[in-house]
Amino acid sequence: MSSTQTSKSTVAQAARKISPKLSNLSGAEKDQLLLKISENLKNNKQRIIEANQKDVQAAQKMVDQGELSTPLLNRLILTDDKIAQLSTYLEEVAKLDDPIGKKQFAMKLAEGLELERISCPLGVVAIIFESRPEVVIQVTALSLKSGNAVILKGGREASHSNRVLFELIEEVLKEMDLLGAVNLIETRDDVANLLDQEAYIDLIIPRGGNEFVRYIQENTKIPVLGHSSGICHIYVDQQFDLAMATKVSVDAKVDYPSACNAVETILVHAGSAESFIPQLIPELLEKKVSVKGCARSLEIAQKNKLSMEAASEEDWESEYSDLVLSIKVVDSMQEAIEHINRHGSHHTDSIITTENSHAEFFLQQVDSACVFHNASTRFSDGYVFGLGAEVGISTNKTHARGPVGLDGMIIYKYLLRGDGQVRGVFSGKNALPFLHQALPID
Amino acid sequence: MSSTQTSKSTVAQAARKISPKLSNLSGAEKDQLLLKISENLKNNKQRIIEANQKDVQAAQKMVDQGELSTPLLNRLILTDDKIAQLSTYLEEVAKLDDPIGKKQFAMKLAEGLELERISCPLGVVAIIFESRPEVVIQVTALSLKSGNAVILKGGREASHSNRVLFELIEEVLKEMDLLGAVNLIETRDDVANLLDQEAYIDLIIPRGGNEFVRYIQENTKIPVLGHSSGICHIYVDQQFDLAMATKVSVDAKVDYPSACNAVETILVHAGSAESFIPQLIPELLEKKVSVKGCARSLEIAQKNKLSMEAASEEDWESEYSDLVLSIKVVDSMQEAIEHINRHGSHHTDSIITTENSHAEFFLQQVDSACVFHNASTRFSDGYVFGLGAEVGISTNKTHARGPVGLDGMIIYKYLLRGDGQVRGVFSGKNALPFLHQALPID
Repeated sequence: MSSTQTSKSTVAQAARKISPKLSNLSGAEKDQLLLKISENLKNNKQRIIEANQKDVQAAQKMVDQGELSTPLLNRLILTDDKIAQLSTYLEEVAKLDDPIGKKQFAMKLAEGLELERISCPLGVVAIIFESRPEVVIQVTALSLKSGNAVILKGGREASHSNRVLFELIEEVLKEMDLLGAVNLIETRDDVANLLDQEAYIDLIIPRGGNEFVRYIQENTKIPVLGHSSGICHIYVDQQFDLAMATKVSVDAKVDYPSACNAVETILVHAGSAESFIPQLIPELLEKKVSVKGCARSLEIAQKNKLSMEAASEEDWESEYSDLVLSIKVVDSMQEAIEHINRHGSHHTDSIITTENSHAEFFLQQVDSACVFHNASTRFSDGYVFGLGAEVGISTNKTHARGPVGLDGMIIYKYLLRGDGQVRGVFSGKNALPFLHQALPID
Repeated sequence: MSSTQTSKSTVAQAARKISPKLSNLSGAEKDQLLLKISENLKNNKQRIIEANQKDVQAAQKMVDQGELSTPLLNRLILTDDKIAQLSTYLEEVAKLDDPIGKKQFAMKLAEGLELERISCPLGVVAIIFESRPEVVIQVTALSLKSGNAVILKGGREASHSNRVLFELIEEVLKEMDLLGAVNLIETRDDVANLLDQEAYIDLIIPRGGNEFVRYIQENTKIPVLGHSSGICHIYVDQQFDLAMATKVSVDAKVDYPSACNAVETILVHAGSAESFIPQLIPELLEKKVSVKGCARSLEIAQKNKLSMEAASEEDWESEYSDLVLSIKVVDSMQEAIEHINRHGSHHTDSIITTENSHAEFFLQQVDSACVFHNASTRFSDGYVFGLGAEVGISTNKTHARGPVGLDGMIIYKYLLRGDGQVRGVFSGKNALPFLHQALPID
């Protein structure tokens, strides 16, 4: 039985089966596992390069036929440097603190009856990602470090690279008698087959296009961690620094337009619109950004002879993922906050203001995972936040929100140790009282 | 517009609308709100008693006609003492630490660019519960304390009591300009109408029968916190104390048979079965418990001339919620663990053993919210655990697990404060490095 076969539930069952053993590994054992994988990658550089070449050649054909963009091709390529980085990454994750078995809470309930709450792995996590093959290694490192079994599905363009990386991981798992701890599935059908496996899978993390993420969210009872869209805003307040607002707005749009944390709509206070919009548009146009605007923005653009299309209601809920931006004039910060909470995707939103009390109100009232003051929305990222590692960015309100690191892959359980206590004596007449004495948690 | 009207989305929208204002209340303001509600209950004791009388009279008729049990009737009754306790409960919750606005993490990313993660309310929570009217007050207290708007649905038998308690709450909300913070819905149709309101509701906590909870879980995209069943186990190991095993098993079954933490199946190591089963059964029979068993248990029962029915495969996944218990003989602790992880509901399971290394392995390997050593499963409860307050018991693996207190009603957000930083300068050639300096969190 191969852990890559596509039979309806075998992969999820195999992952679930190994999960108790994985959750029982010591920190040292998990680190050894990561270091052995790192070693195996180093020893098989040539095998990785050969597999990667197949993907790159196929992708080059697609580029030649105009079916793939050069940046996407470049993301596929595993250079010597990148392969070395994969090993470094495994070694870095090995160095992190073991997140499992941490005592979070401890209480003496009665004489000889002590409760504790300790961190533990979720169990089985499925992660679906796009074409960068290094994600296979990153996600494997994070899953094993947190004691989780993982089911991986990578992008089709990287299939040979993903497979060889998986094989190198599996060789180590086999040696350590941990087959099933990492699983690779290879088609969208395989993904569809996972969606009703809630008995075996504890969390799905889809990283990819909006439509695909939404499909996952709408077709499974398994908890889904992630975001289907990133409709991020910048609100430029009445009191503001013109140069800062312009610089931050341009960065948030052009630094990486297809990123989920790129800005899509800029909301401008009516009192700032006459000075800010004529300053901003030329800078955007110079960077090849198409600008759309509400009626009031259009009027200002026309008065200043600047190019702007009319925005429709749809624009306020569009993630362009491209060099396109919409602008809307609002009469108050309250209107901006309401617009963001209603039309946004609760991902990342920023206020540009010199008025600290306004900033604090905005930070408090905008219902998003990340809310910024005088900073580009592009800072919303697990690596940038110093979380060490990122499995994805969540717009969920439960479990984990914003950029999610190892924390999102763990949960806890309550352990109670007694010497034969029964509940009956703590209720009714002559009930014993509970002590509820907090105990130290190390 | 009344916040109890049944139009499809009005209640959820009203709750969502007030949510930012609620989340912005200071700890002192929230405590004042709770104390004012407490005061209003005290000042309207007679109104509460009159409304409660209507429910009690209707319930008494049902008891007379054999449609309701006397214990259920007793749970409905609001005595003077119970009403006083409602006020005490509000005052106790007011005394708890404000869970909102707590800094959980802080990091300097670059000069003048500081990140923090702070706790915040979920937003809008819907809680569906059964006939005890005091739950209206308990849930209101926890929701308001955590800055959440709440939609309540109580049991039909308590409808007059629930309504008067809600009215007394709403009078205070109106005075404090917080209408919509607490909402009462009154029919199952109203509940069904909430299920597609994922844009307005962040969490549903159903507390009630298995079938109803499963219906909620299967018919909404809103995260559901709770458990549909409580199939709890006790495993009696090879090395064990006979008196302790018997005492704990009997307590776990008979102390409160309809509770979700009552034991349903006892797994017995083959080496212990001959001594334990003949000791246990007479004690259970004395307490009117019907005992079912696997073939090997039956053999032992027959040999000892003790009454036992044959258990079928279905029994291993049955929550009897009654004075019924099943017994299965297993050949090893490993078999017991696999049985529990496969057939149980991941709620609460206990091992009885004198061998500590066995206990620790069991605590680690059983994938349940609560795992106990030498203690009755009946201890699984938020009040018993010293959590101060309980909104429900969760068998989820994400967000909150086991007995859930205020913690389950909060999440966090990332706030980043800068002075105009852009992402572009931290990448590419001449990239500035991120500092990633941990900052104190008070």
